[in-house]
Amino acid sequence: MMSAGLSTNFRLEKVSGVARAARMSTSHGEVLTPAFMPVATQASVKAISPEEARDCGSQILLSNAYHLALRPGVEIVSQFGGLHKFMGWDGPILTDSGGFQVYSLGRIRKISEEGVNFKSHIDGSTMFISPEIAIRNQEMLGSDIAMAFDECIGYEAELEDTKKAMERTHRWAERCLAAHSRIDQAIFGIVQGGHSPSLRKQSISAITKLAFEGFAIGGLGVGESKIEMYKMVELVSPRLPSNKPRYLMGVGSPEDLVNAVSFGVDLFDCALPTRVARNGSLFRSDGRHDITSSRYRSVTGPIDAECDCLACLNFSVSYLHHLFKCRELLGYRLASLHNIRFYHKLMEQIRMAIFEDKFDEFRQGFLEKFKPANEKARLMQRKAIKSWS
Amino acid sequence: MMSAGLSTNFRLEKVSGVARAARMSTSHGEVLTPAFMPVATQASVKAISPEEARDCGSQILLSNAYHLALRPGVEIVSQFGGLHKFMGWDGPILTDSGGFQVYSLGRIRKISEEGVNFKSHIDGSTMFISPEIAIRNQEMLGSDIAMAFDECIGYEAELEDTKKAMERTHRWAERCLAAHSRIDQAIFGIVQGGHSPSLRKQSISAITKLAFEGFAIGGLGVGESKIEMYKMVELVSPRLPSNKPRYLMGVGSPEDLVNAVSFGVDLFDCALPTRVARNGSLFRSDGRHDITSSRYRSVTGPIDAECDCLACLNFSVSYLHHLFKCRELLGYRLASLHNIRFYHKLMEQIRMAIFEDKFDEFRQGFLEKFKPANEKARLMQRKAIKSWS
Repeated sequence: MMSAGLSTNFRLEKVSGVARAARMSTSHGEVLTPAFMPVATQASVKAISPEEARDCGSQILLSNAYHLALRPGVEIVSQFGGLHKFMGWDGPILTDSGGFQVYSLGRIRKISEEGVNFKSHIDGSTMFISPEIAIRNQEMLGSDIAMAFDECIGYEAELEDTKKAMERTHRWAERCLAAHSRIDQAIFGIVQGGHSPSLRKQSISAITKLAFEGFAIGGLGVGESKIEMYKMVELVSPRLPSNKPRYLMGVGSPEDLVNAVSFGVDLFDCALPTRVARNGSLFRSDGRHDITSSRYRSVTGPIDAECDCLACLNFSVSYLHHLFKCRELLGYRLASLHNIRFYHKLMEQIRMAIFEDKFDEFRQGFLEKFKPANEKARLMQRKAIKSWS
Repeated sequence: MMSAGLSTNFRLEKVSGVARAARMSTSHGEVLTPAFMPVATQASVKAISPEEARDCGSQILLSNAYHLALRPGVEIVSQFGGLHKFMGWDGPILTDSGGFQVYSLGRIRKISEEGVNFKSHIDGSTMFISPEIAIRNQEMLGSDIAMAFDECIGYEAELEDTKKAMERTHRWAERCLAAHSRIDQAIFGIVQGGHSPSLRKQSISAITKLAFEGFAIGGLGVGESKIEMYKMVELVSPRLPSNKPRYLMGVGSPEDLVNAVSFGVDLFDCALPTRVARNGSLFRSDGRHDITSSRYRSVTGPIDAECDCLACLNFSVSYLHHLFKCRELLGYRLASLHNIRFYHKLMEQIRMAIFEDKFDEFRQGFLEKFKPANEKARLMQRKAIKSWS
């Protein structure tokens, strides 16, 4: 089932302020936006089965072409006719190209105009990724949406270096498009430019001139404060074409999603809900709760009486607390299911509020009630995001 | 739903040689025997949900009163009205009393006629279990079948010490029965006597005189060879009352189950199928296979074409190999599901062979095809069984 090109299949349904509700078609079905994409970096949403992901509301999963190229190798996956069959997920898949992972490698990579030389974090072997290889890998994986291969740069970088990385990202974007040939696969461009408003505007101009079917905001969540991150999303998002999907990469917490939707973002991914779940941190509308705390030892009710996830429908806080204390694997699964369901339900509520033209009211109500994780927890998150996950 | 006493509800359906097929009623439903009980030591079958256990054929689960008394504590579980509600499993549950765990504690326990003083392996606090406390704990947990509190002793013990432990087990058995009051809960006695045929016969005589509703063979799998273990099962099992269930505790591998059924055993439990699953060791009718081996890297078929488990129906060997290489939690779940299903299917085949009065033929066919784990792997297993699992 091939699409004629995703760009023609992004249908805006409703706008409330700058927030948008839309339908995005892919070769493996439709995605109602704003949408959150659970992270299946290594072809598995951590602790969750594909069926469970579907049941808790996942419409589209994100996987990582860089990780899969290293292990098991794209040739192995292509034996199955692609990633969908390999991992047992028949819905849409977006693959990240690996730009961010290469950035995370720090000293063990060497970037040239041609591409990036680096050492595999698995076996130390020498590897090379160019824009052409990144696209070939994603075509072999057969994801519904491929991402351009970009050069990401840290928050502390000099303006001159940020500019160079951005310009290279633009040249690489053209090479990605030239290399891309699968007509059943969309390709999204990535706007870079660090934390300079002027560079970001240049990047928007350069990237949106190209024939991408969607646009991502890259290079955020690399060490800046939330305020700075929001400022940049507010600057970039509304300047992207309104008739194409807008994707904020790797962000973030529930409050980040609500805020970014208010700037017109449609798509999100983040490892946060599943990663913190495995540490026993569970989301509710009032914030995060640490299930390992002794205060939950004998609570016979569910985590969240408003929640319809498998964990809340079938198990108590006390049992979940016990599973975490015993490090039983079922605990990690139930907590992950709960947090993913929380994210999807939040997106469903956001979408409904947009349709009712009450998004700003919803946002204010959510932010008043939801207590974000403290700054210390946030810094720990940031470190974790940079490391392999 | 209270039963009038399990002993009246064990109905032999068919005998083939010494092997038996029967139906055992409990307060939470019927169990078709011979049956394997997956181990949910800490109120969770490791890596599996209760629904998945049910779906792959589990009829009855085994949990451990000793472990649950330490964590979360029987008072917590009784808040839920018992273990069934706490862990979300509405089928039958058998609880072990903790005799074997106390044996495993080695030096950090002190046994007297009154009971056992020991230090908690969780927080080092001083604990005490007597026959009365072991029964009280199991009554508070509300399992369908409670086990008497026995004194288990190692393979290397002197005959005199083995005799003393056996005699104490007999006195404790009487105290367990005297302390037991829940009429909706059956209680099974445990035959001890180490590796002395004469002591085993004495123990059978003493224990089967008491009003237990089923009889277990304890004190095996403590360091002896398979041959010695089989000899003891062959000696004890047929001498137990034929109108009551016979349970071989903590044993074992697929070939152990097939052999023990040929001596008239009805019930089994063992941590082996789930523990080795988490190490990537998967059962098939020809033996165990290590899924982490590079030979499985690109095998697109299921683990076992004859298997109807969730893993075999939905995923490939290659994907499972990948999950194990990446240490993805889904891998441990799928492997555990597969191995538990293998055990249940084996018991279903055994039961069918008994009904067709072809059990011995089945046993020979199975043993010809199934290659047991090598002696080295077996010694490692034995060590692991002795440690906390």
